[in-house]
Amino acid sequence: MKKIVVIGEVLVEIMANNIGEGFREVQSLTGPFPSGAPAIFADQAAKMGQPVAIVSAVGDDDFGHLNLDRLRRDGVDVSGIFIDKERPTGSAFVRYRENGERDFVFNIFHSAAGRLNATDAVKALLDSADHLHVMGSSLSSPEFVALNLRAAKVIRGNGGTVSFDPNVRREILSAEGIAEAMSRMISMTDLFLPSGGELTLLTKSTAPEAAVEELLECGVQAIVHKRGADGASFHDRLGALAIDAFTVQEIDPTGAGDCFGGTFAALWLRGTDAQRALQLAAASGALAVTKRGPMEGTATLAELEDFIRRIGGSSR
Amino acid sequence: MKKIVVIGEVLVEIMANNIGEGFREVQSLTGPFPSGAPAIFADQAAKMGQPVAIVSAVGDDDFGHLNLDRLRRDGVDVSGIFIDKERPTGSAFVRYRENGERDFVFNIFHSAAGRLNATDAVKALLDSADHLHVMGSSLSSPEFVALNLRAAKVIRGNGGTVSFDPNVRREILSAEGIAEAMSRMISMTDLFLPSGGELTLLTKSTAPEAAVEELLECGVQAIVHKRGADGASFHDRLGALAIDAFTVQEIDPTGAGDCFGGTFAALWLRGTDAQRALQLAAASGALAVTKRGPMEGTATLAELEDFIRRIGGSSR
Repeated sequence: MKKIVVIGEVLVEIMANNIGEGFREVQSLTGPFPSGAPAIFADQAAKMGQPVAIVSAVGDDDFGHLNLDRLRRDGVDVSGIFIDKERPTGSAFVRYRENGERDFVFNIFHSAAGRLNATDAVKALLDSADHLHVMGSSLSSPEFVALNLRAAKVIRGNGGTVSFDPNVRREILSAEGIAEAMSRMISMTDLFLPSGGELTLLTKSTAPEAAVEELLECGVQAIVHKRGADGASFHDRLGALAIDAFTVQEIDPTGAGDCFGGTFAALWLRGTDAQRALQLAAASGALAVTKRGPMEGTATLAELEDFIRRIGGSSR
Repeated sequence: MKKIVVIGEVLVEIMANNIGEGFREVQSLTGPFPSGAPAIFADQAAKMGQPVAIVSAVGDDDFGHLNLDRLRRDGVDVSGIFIDKERPTGSAFVRYRENGERDFVFNIFHSAAGRLNATDAVKALLDSADHLHVMGSSLSSPEFVALNLRAAKVIRGNGGTVSFDPNVRREILSAEGIAEAMSRMISMTDLFLPSGGELTLLTKSTAPEAAVEELLECGVQAIVHKRGADGASFHDRLGALAIDAFTVQEIDPTGAGDCFGGTFAALWLRGTDAQRALQLAAASGALAVTKRGPMEGTATLAELEDFIRRIGGSSR
């Protein structure tokens, strides 16, 4: 089995219980939930039985240990998670608005997760990995960009592969160096996993079909376009296929794209055919939105198959 | 009216709803509450009608604005609160254990409140203040110690006074420089406000009476010993007096000592006799423990008088 490594933030998430605007008033909350997009991806890939490690840092506090416990329990290799004795574990407070948008209060850049710790364990992981998954949200500083680019080069040099989920808002691309980092990343990407409008975020082409063409020409082997409730599509040089989304009651969409990606990447690495990988990945995303908490909806392959059996023929 | 200035942390507090150990599991929470010992002290003094300013920093996030809104509403001069565009507002997660002890997850040193911002507004406040209140919990780094010592010197040089609440756990005294900072602070203290065992924390004497004697000899004008449910005592060169605590149902003791201190300091500065000041300060502490949230129990003079009338003769 090929070993995945992902570099990026491990956080706790605190969720507001009531819909409304932000955190300027005392309110009912639930948490701490284990979180961080790369951590959710890793947890889901591990539940699929894929060897996976995460390079990150947490504080030596309950929030850090909560995450370590969860990731370890689910089979993630946590040897690359540095325990920072000084900085606290990163956190994100999240509240949904009436229109589905979210308000956040973040503590990431000045938390343990905001600092790179190039320990021997990290070097060993990057040297031994067969696959690097890059989460755009983790390209948050020049040193994290540099580490991801260096790791991509090493792993591809050793015959490995790279997947890349841009996971970024358009406004962030204007931050210094981010657009350039993203385009350097795409030039080393084998499996590209954009959501919605991210398909055309890094291409000259603004039309979806032309963007797919452009990405395949620039060396991307496969593109999985995550379109939430509208389903998902797969593109490679041989053609394209699409599936509908599973119809579920949405409780909390946070983390669904990361679960989708973790499942798809694990299946892609073991050569599962695209149709089935897409269906299982869509099931993974659908299950995730039915659970409250960003990492609470991760599932094993057996659970995904069971879900598909229960939901039945809602995919085509 | 004499103007008080206090230097120290402005935070939000997130409270666990259920008694238990720490934050290694998802649970029901309530918050964010405005918090920070110096902020609670300032809010209470402001509610007493005393001019009071706080020197601090918050992030440019909902947690920072929540605190600014509350302090401003209650009459605290917030011109010395720097809004840090990079760092988040500090936070403390608090959970009570069965035995009354508390578990915390803090983000203070790496938050906005962990950095000193010597703005012009801060200089103006320190130059114009008549009284400095020093909170031991805020002597958290060499630069905060230095600022407090410098401010104490300037304000006393201008004929002003200094109050000091050690507000520190014994184990923290072993941190580098803290014990020395505390003893330099006590040598410039006019009004000393220890709680429980803190009375003998900074003295050679370990017996309460001898410690009082030693403190008065070393230049402290007045000592108020806060003893929680056991009442409070006042000591000066002329003698001593003690009162019982008001009997209330304890909901949340956090912040009670800070409310006690804010009320007493405000009354002491306006020359209220010690007996009455002690009684009103005890009422302030008692009211605070009946409210959930560290700053939710601050009260005006009229509210304190009303409370004493209602509770009746439980003080001697």
